[in-house]
Amino acid sequence: MRILVLNPNTTESVTELMIEAGRAVTAAGTELVPMTARLGVPYISTRAEAQIGGAIVLDMIAEAYREVDAVIIAAYGDPGLFGAREMFDLPVIGISEAAMLTACMLGQRFALVALSSAFNGWYRDCVEMHGLMGRCAGIYGLDRSFDSIADVQDDNLEALVALANHAIDAEDAHAMIFAGAPLAGLARKVRDRIPVPIIDPIAAAVKQAEALVALSPRKATRGSFKRPVFKTAIGLPAALSAYMDASHAEPRR
Amino acid sequence: MRILVLNPNTTESVTELMIEAGRAVTAAGTELVPMTARLGVPYISTRAEAQIGGAIVLDMIAEAYREVDAVIIAAYGDPGLFGAREMFDLPVIGISEAAMLTACMLGQRFALVALSSAFNGWYRDCVEMHGLMGRCAGIYGLDRSFDSIADVQDDNLEALVALANHAIDAEDAHAMIFAGAPLAGLARKVRDRIPVPIIDPIAAAVKQAEALVALSPRKATRGSFKRPVFKTAIGLPAALSAYMDASHAEPRR
Amino acid sequence: MRILVLNPNTTESVTELMIEAGRAVTAAGTELVPMTARLGVPYISTRAEAQIGGAIVLDMIAEAYREVDAVIIAAYGDPGLFGAREMFDLPVIGISEAAMLTACMLGQRFALVALSSAFNGWYRDCVEMHGLMGRCAGIYGLDRSFDSIADVQDDNLEALVALANHAIDAEDAHAMIFAGAPLAGLARKVRDRIPVPIIDPIAAAVKQAEALVALSPRKATRGSFKRPVFKTAIGLPAALSAYMDASHAEPRR
Amino acid sequence: MRILVLNPNTTESVTELMIEAGRAVTAAGTELVPMTARLGVPYISTRAEAQIGGAIVLDMIAEAYREVDAVIIAAYGDPGLFGAREMFDLPVIGISEAAMLTACMLGQRFALVALSSAFNGWYRDCVEMHGLMGRCAGIYGLDRSFDSIADVQDDNLEALVALANHAIDAEDAHAMIFAGAPLAGLARKVRDRIPVPIIDPIAAAVKQAEALVALSPRKATRGSFKRPVFKTAIGLPAALSAYMDASHAEPRR
Amino acid sequence: MRILVLNPNTTESVTELMIEAGRAVTAAGTELVPMTARLGVPYISTRAEAQIGGAIVLDMIAEAYREVDAVIIAAYGDPGLFGAREMFDLPVIGISEAAMLTACMLGQRFALVALSSAFNGWYRDCVEMHGLMGRCAGIYGLDRSFDSIADVQDDNLEALVALANHAIDAEDAHAMIFAGAPLAGLARKVRDRIPVPIIDPIAAAVKQAEALVALSPRKATRGSFKRPVFKTAIGLPAALSAYMDASHAEPRR
Amino acid sequence: MRILVLNPNTTESVTELMIEAGRAVTAAGTELVPMTARLGVPYISTRAEAQIGGAIVLDMIAEAYREVDAVIIAAYGDPGLFGAREMFDLPVIGISEAAMLTACMLGQRFALVALSSAFNGWYRDCVEMHGLMGRCAGIYGLDRSFDSIADVQDDNLEALVALANHAIDAEDAHAMIFAGAPLAGLARKVRDRIPVPIIDPIAAAVKQAEALVALSPRKATRGSFKRPVFKTAIGLPAALSAYMDASHAEPRR
Repeated sequence: MRILVLNPNTTESVTELMIEAGRAVTAAGTELVPMTARLGVPYISTRAEAQIGGAIVLDMIAEAYREVDAVIIAAYGDPGLFGAREMFDLPVIGISEAAMLTACMLGQRFALVALSSAFNGWYRDCVEMHGLMGRCAGIYGLDRSFDSIADVQDDNLEALVALANHAIDAEDAHAMIFAGAPLAGLARKVRDRIPVPIIDPIAAAVKQAEALVALSPRKATRGSFKRPVFKTAIGLPAALSAYMDASHAEPRR
Repeated sequence: MRILVLNPNTTESVTELMIEAGRAVTAAGTELVPMTARLGVPYISTRAEAQIGGAIVLDMIAEAYREVDAVIIAAYGDPGLFGAREMFDLPVIGISEAAMLTACMLGQRFALVALSSAFNGWYRDCVEMHGLMGRCAGIYGLDRSFDSIADVQDDNLEALVALANHAIDAEDAHAMIFAGAPLAGLARKVRDRIPVPIIDPIAAAVKQAEALVALSPRKATRGSFKRPVFKTAIGLPAALSAYMDASHAEPRR
Repeated sequence: MRILVLNPNTTESVTELMIEAGRAVTAAGTELVPMTARLGVPYISTRAEAQIGGAIVLDMIAEAYREVDAVIIAAYGDPGLFGAREMFDLPVIGISEAAMLTACMLGQRFALVALSSAFNGWYRDCVEMHGLMGRCAGIYGLDRSFDSIADVQDDNLEALVALANHAIDAEDAHAMIFAGAPLAGLARKVRDRIPVPIIDPIAAAVKQAEALVALSPRKATRGSFKRPVFKTAIGLPAALSAYMDASHAEPRR
Repeated sequence: MRILVLNPNTTESVTELMIEAGRAVTAAGTELVPMTARLGVPYISTRAEAQIGGAIVLDMIAEAYREVDAVIIAAYGDPGLFGAREMFDLPVIGISEAAMLTACMLGQRFALVALSSAFNGWYRDCVEMHGLMGRCAGIYGLDRSFDSIADVQDDNLEALVALANHAIDAEDAHAMIFAGAPLAGLARKVRDRIPVPIIDPIAAAVKQAEALVALSPRKATRGSFKRPVFKTAIGLPAALSAYMDASHAEPRR
Repeated sequence: MRILVLNPNTTESVTELMIEAGRAVTAAGTELVPMTARLGVPYISTRAEAQIGGAIVLDMIAEAYREVDAVIIAAYGDPGLFGAREMFDLPVIGISEAAMLTACMLGQRFALVALSSAFNGWYRDCVEMHGLMGRCAGIYGLDRSFDSIADVQDDNLEALVALANHAIDAEDAHAMIFAGAPLAGLARKVRDRIPVPIIDPIAAAVKQAEALVALSPRKATRGSFKRPVFKTAIGLPAALSAYMDASHAEPRR
Repeated sequence: MRILVLNPNTTESVTELMIEAGRAVTAAGTELVPMTARLGVPYISTRAEAQIGGAIVLDMIAEAYREVDAVIIAAYGDPGLFGAREMFDLPVIGISEAAMLTACMLGQRFALVALSSAFNGWYRDCVEMHGLMGRCAGIYGLDRSFDSIADVQDDNLEALVALANHAIDAEDAHAMIFAGAPLAGLARKVRDRIPVPIIDPIAAAVKQAEALVALSPRKATRGSFKRPVFKTAIGLPAALSAYMDASHAEPRR
């Protein structure tokens, strides 16, 4: 089984970090296929960047979908998720969705901890988009800025552990999610220093992608997630245009 | 006051329809500035198209914002709205948001009636995105397809009136919204045939844009709607790139 | 266009304060018509006073409605709003409703800041009555009492600014509402000292009243906001009685 | 123990009907004290009438509270309830509140059945005001008008039984409430013809009033239900004025 | 009237404490019948213990139901409540349900205060199970462990009073519930030291049981609370087995 | 990896049906270990049976947990789930939870279709227990009774397909769950006859169990899902007693 790990950010080192964290949990026979955006921003962290990045996601899937069995949108906030789920007939999973749904099996209420409190608003939108506000104990972020996302995880490790412990006590959180692609792999490093189960979003997404591929759900042919009849579009990126033009072909499944 | 009526669809005739419906309610001194997308699809009606169209919206605002006092995103579903609101320092209003908030002042529960039940899912997402599910009595759409959006309003007038009347009885709706840009102006035509107040989304948006310009709210400089520090992006459209590059300049307000 | 600014409190100076704040934002041709309660309390601030004041509101509208195009109920908490909306066939807007709906167009979550934390319970009821709890980041009030409402705004200006700033940080509020009629005009004075957009309820209500008059929605003739068939009542105030007695006349619109 | 059965409507025969239905369930030693409004409308059935009636309720309690141990506001929709609860220091219970809370102990979801579907909107407001929408399976009303409320119960008995049975099947309702003061006593008559437990609102209110008197909860002296400091009011009814003037006296409990 | 006070815990002294607190509020003619579990744990305080204890509850009711008119499940968290309500045809009330519903008549929002913050999660589940999260201002527990539940009330009295006062201020709670069977009777002792009304769960449950017996609701014969057709079970406790075997007999009411 | 498929019902043939449906989706190296209740009822379908069955579940896990890596509670409604999750330090997953969370990745709204509408109430409780009411489009059941659960799937296949199709149209459901252990494997058989993706609960649970084992979350040592300090219990089943007695031993993880 081949799973596309689609990083809609342009930072290859974060893709590598996620691939590494993902590989630690793959089943036998699962291959993770990395793909890093060639367009867009180094790190999506605002609503506007998610809007732009989500459109880039659709083009990237259109380019790559034939070669894989499932797609992971590997940026917290799940840019482009619902559009991709509607448009393509293979499983598409967002890392925040996967993290939250998986956390639901470990307690009643999960908390999010992120690199910056500047993301809180956008992350709250994301929890609400998935209808999971009732399961969310709180959203916390560090009060600091960072110059590069390359080393953010190590530079902020102690502060993140402290913030996670604070969130657990303050909110009676039963599970913890380190939110944000640059934190991939952190859950494993600090497992013993945080007194509730921690979900690593990319790891959860890999397992959920494997689950959906094994379950092999059919593509809807009715209702609001059936593949739309595509209209004639102008000026869209090449892969996306080609996919939409070919839309009269038979769906895969 | 100049208000940009930004149609993220490529169909000029729909822009004209909206300008006409909007002009019927403008205050003295308000000028509506039409802008039709040069890229994208003729008529956004799916989550994927809204994802793509929302990114186009950001570029269109970046191109035009200097010349206007407020922006109306003139496609039902409000593509790109929150990103635009975060990114630019002038009022940005979506027509579905404006329609629903205005309808809230005419009763406890509004209903949506649209050209096609195929839009129901995406429109429900939109109601939830605005946190107004508790005020929504129901979402209804015709069970028919249409070839062209040019004449949809007249062709379906009788069916829409009948559906609206049905929705009011079935759901105890107190106000009605004809959802969808191609229905601009319909509210006025059928006013006497529907027993509750009807909101025309573009007309509501024009009035809300005038309201916000008059109230002159400042741009947030803190929290999740302050203007982001833009990162170095690759391959974005020209106007958007230029705006982001110039982001160190002083905010307008 | 003539808009009735109906102050259900007996304090004329607060009516004047609101008229002044409202006039700052009127469109050309809009006239604000002040009306101060001759009966009732100097300042509605409890559920009981709102119950009494709301009944007074209905009588005041019955007295004045023929001379105006819309009515603003100019006390925070919107006493009598839904009854008036049901009973009369012109737009009726509450200042808290107008403030909150307008704030919804400036971010996902608004906060309320008031003169006294004693109002928190009643203001929370008001947010829930409008179905907007999901958009409300928090309700804050000063912990002090005041002798006269004449000078409350200036006397508490520094404390209110500090509390607003605290609320924004504590709750990630995206917009701020200074709740309470005696705070009319404050938003403008402290605009630069609070890092998110501020809504002045009376100013918002004036713009929303103008919007509704321009949109000219019909009166419901069906469902729970149609004009009721009035029963024979005993001992009601003169204007209200006369209105109810005349109820078989043709509705205005 | 003396419980005031305060009918804010002017129809004495409905007061008698309620007293009779209430007496069927009183504990030994409980006396029901009837009081019928001398002002207002024959039968409150709209938001406007509830606004007016709720103010009348406050005056009636001010007149009678010294002679009783608890007050029942005996009109469906609970006009004036929260204001009265705030203002007086004895238990005040609404019949719709009592009916719904009692029904909660008989199943997860109750349904309301009323004389007219015209009340649905106002009754929905009432369910929401009590925060019980999640426990409400549905609100149903007959589609007929009625000339007098004197005989409505008998005239509509068959239709109400049929509607209740329909509601139970359509909504999986676990308990049923016949809503509306003129239906007092109906539950008992049709007990064997409806397959789920039925709550008679006045009967439930009598038992809840007895419960609260026995539990003897103290009056709040803090927060938003403490007795307000009354202001100098103008032109309020006599009893209410006197109560507010005497407000510096010691609270009873 | 005979009301079973069923303590699903094995600690007789807590049963006695509850009987004493209950007797303080019974109506004339009401007899409280104590029953203490012979199996199970000394004090249910976790989800697992509630699962086990709830099954024991069903067997205990099967043993005792013929001799009583109503059943109170006298452990906070209401173990076995919905199953018992479905299975038996007499009123069954949980003490947490009774406390919360009664508190709803004393203000908009109640707070829970318990012996240990370790119960917070399970108590939150309980509030949600009853659909009352919107009425709950907060759940608070002491941060201490205790060796025996015999003396917990006196040992922790000062700390509980302090915590209750803190909760009221922090959350604007309008009513207070001391949650947990070992706190039976505490409400009365500290009535003057807490500035809002306090509900004692067992006392509330006694009054609600009396109310339901007086109202005499019929057992559902339709929908999800009708008495199930029992299947042939293996190895269940004696009384429960016998009840299920006899299930073809006529229901009592 | 060994996953316990714990059927809390006494019907071995249903266990076999589930094992077969589960094996169709296991990853290489996953072994499903069947376990059928020796006590209890043939088929849990009421709240009371779930209460009893959930206690049996805890004993069964106590007997078997040493030999497996994860536990699936294989009865719709998830009896005993939260208690087991709290008590044991290995992943415990319910089949309804797994089905619903997995369905969330295939659309915004899932519908449940079951053998009998008699289960609707209990199934609704289950959706609410998981906080997923906002994602649930509806719950549907056949209106028929059945004598044996052995052949229910084949006997009702046509009716279930018809009901599922009806539910999809009536509710705009995006994914479908055949709820109930006796329907294991049905999803696969009717995949082509239902126009949206179908989730088989046991298959989803197997994949979610594999996911959690791979992710290897730690057991909480703080908050409301840490392993409780067990008290001295009386008369509990043997394995459960032994587990609780041994509770001072070191947790596994």
